[in-house]
Amino acid sequence: MQPLRVTLGDRSYPIHIGAGLLHDEKLYAQYVSAKTVALVTDRAVARHYLEGVQAALERAGGRVVPILIDDGEQAKSWATLDHVIDALLAARCGRDSVVVALGGGVVGDLAGFAAAVYQRGIPFLQLPTTLLAQVDSSVGGKTAINHARGKNMIGAFHQPLAVIADVGVLDTLPDRELRAGLAEVIKHGFVLDLQFVGWLEANIAKLLARDRAALNHAVRRSCELKAQVVAADEREGGLRAILNFGHTFGHAIEAGMGYGEWLHGEAVAAGMVMAAELSKRAGLLRQEDADRVKALIAAAGLPVLGPKLAVERYLELMQVDKKAAGGEMRFILLDGLGHATLRADVDPQLIRDSIAAAAQ
Amino acid sequence: MQPLRVTLGDRSYPIHIGAGLLHDEKLYAQYVSAKTVALVTDRAVARHYLEGVQAALERAGGRVVPILIDDGEQAKSWATLDHVIDALLAARCGRDSVVVALGGGVVGDLAGFAAAVYQRGIPFLQLPTTLLAQVDSSVGGKTAINHARGKNMIGAFHQPLAVIADVGVLDTLPDRELRAGLAEVIKHGFVLDLQFVGWLEANIAKLLARDRAALNHAVRRSCELKAQVVAADEREGGLRAILNFGHTFGHAIEAGMGYGEWLHGEAVAAGMVMAAELSKRAGLLRQEDADRVKALIAAAGLPVLGPKLAVERYLELMQVDKKAAGGEMRFILLDGLGHATLRADVDPQLIRDSIAAAAQ
Repeated sequence: MQPLRVTLGDRSYPIHIGAGLLHDEKLYAQYVSAKTVALVTDRAVARHYLEGVQAALERAGGRVVPILIDDGEQAKSWATLDHVIDALLAARCGRDSVVVALGGGVVGDLAGFAAAVYQRGIPFLQLPTTLLAQVDSSVGGKTAINHARGKNMIGAFHQPLAVIADVGVLDTLPDRELRAGLAEVIKHGFVLDLQFVGWLEANIAKLLARDRAALNHAVRRSCELKAQVVAADEREGGLRAILNFGHTFGHAIEAGMGYGEWLHGEAVAAGMVMAAELSKRAGLLRQEDADRVKALIAAAGLPVLGPKLAVERYLELMQVDKKAAGGEMRFILLDGLGHATLRADVDPQLIRDSIAAAAQ
Repeated sequence: MQPLRVTLGDRSYPIHIGAGLLHDEKLYAQYVSAKTVALVTDRAVARHYLEGVQAALERAGGRVVPILIDDGEQAKSWATLDHVIDALLAARCGRDSVVVALGGGVVGDLAGFAAAVYQRGIPFLQLPTTLLAQVDSSVGGKTAINHARGKNMIGAFHQPLAVIADVGVLDTLPDRELRAGLAEVIKHGFVLDLQFVGWLEANIAKLLARDRAALNHAVRRSCELKAQVVAADEREGGLRAILNFGHTFGHAIEAGMGYGEWLHGEAVAAGMVMAAELSKRAGLLRQEDADRVKALIAAAGLPVLGPKLAVERYLELMQVDKKAAGGEMRFILLDGLGHATLRADVDPQLIRDSIAAAAQ
């Protein structure tokens, strides 16, 4: 099947989607032939895929240097970044070496940021192995590590050479991670595509049952929607912010509970319910559409209530969120199902009420 | 006087050069009016300029948050970067805040890198206060911190909003730093402009005596030459590498002696003599031109001999240098005075001989 394309001038790149691509040396060859390849992955992913992917990259003509990092969100740290940079230097990687990020969002964000800053930037490939990474974090060039005061506070826009999404890997993904990935799939429908929301409502059971054709379509349509937004606004000057629907609340949930307690997708799911609630209270979204938001999230087995934190604690955590430009809180709201809008003039009382209505 | 311009599409920016600009609130206003301004500087520079610059930025309408870092090359570290990021978060800086780098190359590299990665990139202004920073490091968007295995190994290309070079500050610059800055001025002549080499030979005494008109011309012509190269090759894909003339040897000297022992400009000066020696031995440069290289460096009061390190130690230090793409050593050589060329096929024996000939 033809790859999708993220159109960004000389930073344009393809997204290859299909089963079995992780071992496709012909696909790899154009990116890694005769190059030093730093294959970054975490221990959990390494157990399943390191050997096979390394062999395929070597058949494609790469000199492969595996670099293992710890599992989980805490790997998005300076210490892990320094470990990767150190390994790149030890392997004598130059500016024409290629970093390959094999794993979920954490590996992609960390390895992508390492590629962004190593010798002021070298190329990298995204090989996402979770649904979340395939439909969201691997596309669009956002890379980052966390800071004690907030998630993704240190990062770069650094577009990959290509994204290679092997939907075969979703067969072995834990249920909880599958659902967390669906949160971002659903988000793309909510903010951009009413028809896709309808398709998701009709096919959510198939997706949870890992029907291959349904997953393939969901990944493809999600990537397509995201690619359009990224092409129009690479550096989040405006439009791209709509992809953060549910994220201002979601990041507060993640930070408030300690990163890793709630999965990112779970926090975004509850965050989207809060944002839909706020959209409704701001007079932008009909009650029945807010209900559809909540119902689809519930049908996907995702949380529709945020954790039990004081409302003021939510607000405090949200204010350091990076979407708060110049100290002003901005919200991505729905002004109809399948359409989002960015608002800076939201009544603080409505925000409080929405949190209270959608937290435990 | 009209500012120079670095032409880079939507990343184009002006270089303002003149005496007294550090206190020119009218100039600042277009960049900082109604914004949060993180004014990053080191303790030494702060003693002379923090109060005055902060007052001028405030007159221009900025909300100024001073951020102090330690003096010296060791500040180009993760610890200092984290300190700056932490201060930006504490001050609730958003994506429309502006980082102002007030200081020499270290402050510019560190604060520029902080701006490059804070929330994936926010704008910054370069206010260089050393000759080296005015003629070289503040122009072109290179930012970085150091890694234990090598200088500038972690960084980004991040163009400033503007460079504001106040030549008045050169009056109080220590002699040794003035000379170190002249090394980069002279370098621009060697690689790009034979006529400028002649002007420097005729005016080196005036420059050392801090003749204001001579310094003004030297800063202006250097920035002009560098701006042309950066405009043609922003990310060092080819041409821009010529600005690294003397730097492969120079970085080896800095790393071998421990950063800070030799000033960057001093190391580059001795490195240029080595590179000229290599150019001569490779049959590219006439003996008399190699002699002019050495004589002008000597006339500027700069070292013409590298430190006493084993030749093999030089080679070892040079190989991790980032100019060694894909493990292959590349050299910027002169194929005539005022013209440089990039060579990857240099006989290792000639490199050894050149180091031996130009080290103590």
